[in-house]
Amino acid sequence: MMLHDHLGLIQAAALRAVDPYPAVQRHLTRVENTLHVANADWSLDDATRIIVIAVGKAAVPMAQAAVDRIGDTPITGIVATKVGHAAHHTLPETLRVVEAGHPVPDAAGLTAAQAVASLLATTTARDRVLLLLSGGASALLPSPAEDIALTDLQAVTESLLRAGATIGELNAVRKHLSRLSGGQVARLAQPAPVIALILSDVVGDPLDVIASGPTAPDPTTYVTAQAILTRYNLVEEMLPTVFAHLAAGVAGHIAETPKPGDPAFANVNNVIVGSNRLAAQAAVAEARRLGYNALLLTTFMEGEAREVAKVTAALAKGARAHGDPVKPPACLVWGGETTVTVRGRGKGGRNQELALAAALALEGRPDVALLALATDGTDGPTDAAGAIVDGRTAELARAAGWDPTAALADNNAHPLLDAVGALLRTGPTGTNVNDIAVLLVG
Amino acid sequence: MMLHDHLGLIQAAALRAVDPYPAVQRHLTRVENTLHVANADWSLDDATRIIVIAVGKAAVPMAQAAVDRIGDTPITGIVATKVGHAAHHTLPETLRVVEAGHPVPDAAGLTAAQAVASLLATTTARDRVLLLLSGGASALLPSPAEDIALTDLQAVTESLLRAGATIGELNAVRKHLSRLSGGQVARLAQPAPVIALILSDVVGDPLDVIASGPTAPDPTTYVTAQAILTRYNLVEEMLPTVFAHLAAGVAGHIAETPKPGDPAFANVNNVIVGSNRLAAQAAVAEARRLGYNALLLTTFMEGEAREVAKVTAALAKGARAHGDPVKPPACLVWGGETTVTVRGRGKGGRNQELALAAALALEGRPDVALLALATDGTDGPTDAAGAIVDGRTAELARAAGWDPTAALADNNAHPLLDAVGALLRTGPTGTNVNDIAVLLVG
Repeated sequence: MMLHDHLGLIQAAALRAVDPYPAVQRHLTRVENTLHVANADWSLDDATRIIVIAVGKAAVPMAQAAVDRIGDTPITGIVATKVGHAAHHTLPETLRVVEAGHPVPDAAGLTAAQAVASLLATTTARDRVLLLLSGGASALLPSPAEDIALTDLQAVTESLLRAGATIGELNAVRKHLSRLSGGQVARLAQPAPVIALILSDVVGDPLDVIASGPTAPDPTTYVTAQAILTRYNLVEEMLPTVFAHLAAGVAGHIAETPKPGDPAFANVNNVIVGSNRLAAQAAVAEARRLGYNALLLTTFMEGEAREVAKVTAALAKGARAHGDPVKPPACLVWGGETTVTVRGRGKGGRNQELALAAALALEGRPDVALLALATDGTDGPTDAAGAIVDGRTAELARAAGWDPTAALADNNAHPLLDAVGALLRTGPTGTNVNDIAVLLVG
Repeated sequence: MMLHDHLGLIQAAALRAVDPYPAVQRHLTRVENTLHVANADWSLDDATRIIVIAVGKAAVPMAQAAVDRIGDTPITGIVATKVGHAAHHTLPETLRVVEAGHPVPDAAGLTAAQAVASLLATTTARDRVLLLLSGGASALLPSPAEDIALTDLQAVTESLLRAGATIGELNAVRKHLSRLSGGQVARLAQPAPVIALILSDVVGDPLDVIASGPTAPDPTTYVTAQAILTRYNLVEEMLPTVFAHLAAGVAGHIAETPKPGDPAFANVNNVIVGSNRLAAQAAVAEARRLGYNALLLTTFMEGEAREVAKVTAALAKGARAHGDPVKPPACLVWGGETTVTVRGRGKGGRNQELALAAALALEGRPDVALLALATDGTDGPTDAAGAIVDGRTAELARAAGWDPTAALADNNAHPLLDAVGALLRTGPTGTNVNDIAVLLVG
């Protein structure tokens, strides 16, 4: 079916736009002895070393792209990625490659974080620091303060999550228990100029949140962190080292994280090289090339997957009936990340659940199809990246012996979508910029 | 604040566009001896009578608009509206005005339905039938078949709803137990020409669903209706008259409802004179007049109110950060009707709950405001029509001693929004075209 073919092309274009290797290369070129990094020019005439710190699930291809561009200037540094993600790398021996634990940090990550801190402590004005960040960096490079054990950091994280703290509150506390996050890499790297090329896995690309913001000003303080523990009724007896550390910070015995305007950021450049919006924009561009009236709705989508599916279906109905917000052939693209409140016992992921709910809401409608995709290729605890559904999917499922409504109620989208051939299996894509959805109304 | 003022103007424009009196007058004009009704011309030279059947909550102003346009041609007919809605009418005595029960049908409605059937049975080719339909018509004009009691009709409705039947299934059954719905008014009105001017209170304006489709072809059959009762395990012992009636229909002893292509519709014209989309389009037009880049997203919105709020907030974030889908000053409008799954014990309505959830999702953002409005002026079991919230609403609520998150969890938006002056109290607007939401990003 044509719509399905088009969704395949649009999906490929979106993923291509956020592939880590070309994403880094687009922002890094060398002409003679000048390295053009994002909007800055680094003369290499007086450069002693280029220090490459690559952290995250895409650290290896990002580091490889940098190495391939930099050429003959001495490179040193550390590449920390998830276990299994550096199996076949061809990086030079001057880069120390570490495979560390994710999502649960481990000793390898601790050691790598220590090595990063030590290396950055040696920088001079003749060094250049190139930071390459991608999803998973916080867990892969855990850097608890000296008087805090990794287990303490994990314990306070879990306690806050259980108590209902927001991600912003969680980050404020963790930055004040860590040595690299909250702008502290920028401070450590001084006096060398720093450029961070960032593949964003956080909706909205907030620099102080991605990878815990190693090169971004931290507006929060030790006082903020203390207040958050109090707000959620965490008690000193359970987390004595944490409380002691924050108290020492409030008393001024430990340095604050660098704030906005801090001189540590004078020579720091943060550049988003890959993001959900870049993928979504590429999807829109490809859809236009295919003849669709394409519109990017938002890259901040959130909400319960099955309800977001209803909204997406409502957009399809309006496009078909009235040409709202664009006339058919219409393509509506959104990015972001939905959530699933698990109530059943089935198997699925947020994109698969969204696709199944949309299939029900769009049942019987001809010439409409929806792609729901986890850009990292892994949607929930399944081997699928998402799904493509249309107005016949629900009926096909019934013909295959499934009850789509019951499957949705049981959070069991995966086997149903598998039974009707609707699943997308991309394998790991090597990138991660959250999810995108592409709706076609032919 | 400017955004609030603008939302007030936009709200007024939207409601003005679907005010029943001018809506009917826009589609009905008399020039000399010709009545222009929608796209048809009715010569009154040979017209004996104009039969006006007005049913619904807006029946009185719609009938008044028709009377004021028609002039000296004899008018006869029936106006059936909700108890209290005809208190101060100035309609001519040749129109029989009935105040009937809603949402629970009563004897007055039964009598009115009988009178409508009797009157339509007298039509000749020299009569003209003008049907004026608005929200509530199904309940206000209950027309069970002769061998079906009103209580039977209510019992089968309740049983099907409890069993989880869809609104489409419910309608298929009810049309086959009734004398006026499912196109049967069109058949009764023959040989007179019929024009139905319709103020739609159903999302998407489906002619066969609004007011149970008195002048629209019914694609469903007695066989369909029987199958639905079987599907939901309803048994003959509980509803003997219903089962007997449907069996007689299947056996061909009672006429089917008229199907698509039936000659009964040859001289019938259905015209939507007021709808959610007209209100939404008026909102967009007024926003453009005020200088906003305005976009109508969809008029088919559905989903859980608090989740739709998150999507709406996501659109605000995208507009602010990137100009997706339109650049600020941006105005995004949607129409439809959300739902609330009641889990708490508080007081609210779907629009108030949406507004509160949006206030939380937009907290701290400057220059963004959202109007969520029930166009009939009654949002849930409250005296409010909806609310206007912005990035400061949540903080204001806390300052007033409220916990917005807890209030949302308790479905208790009404008193919180009241405490911060965010409620809209329009009183009954006299119209009903579901809900609209207007998002401004300044």
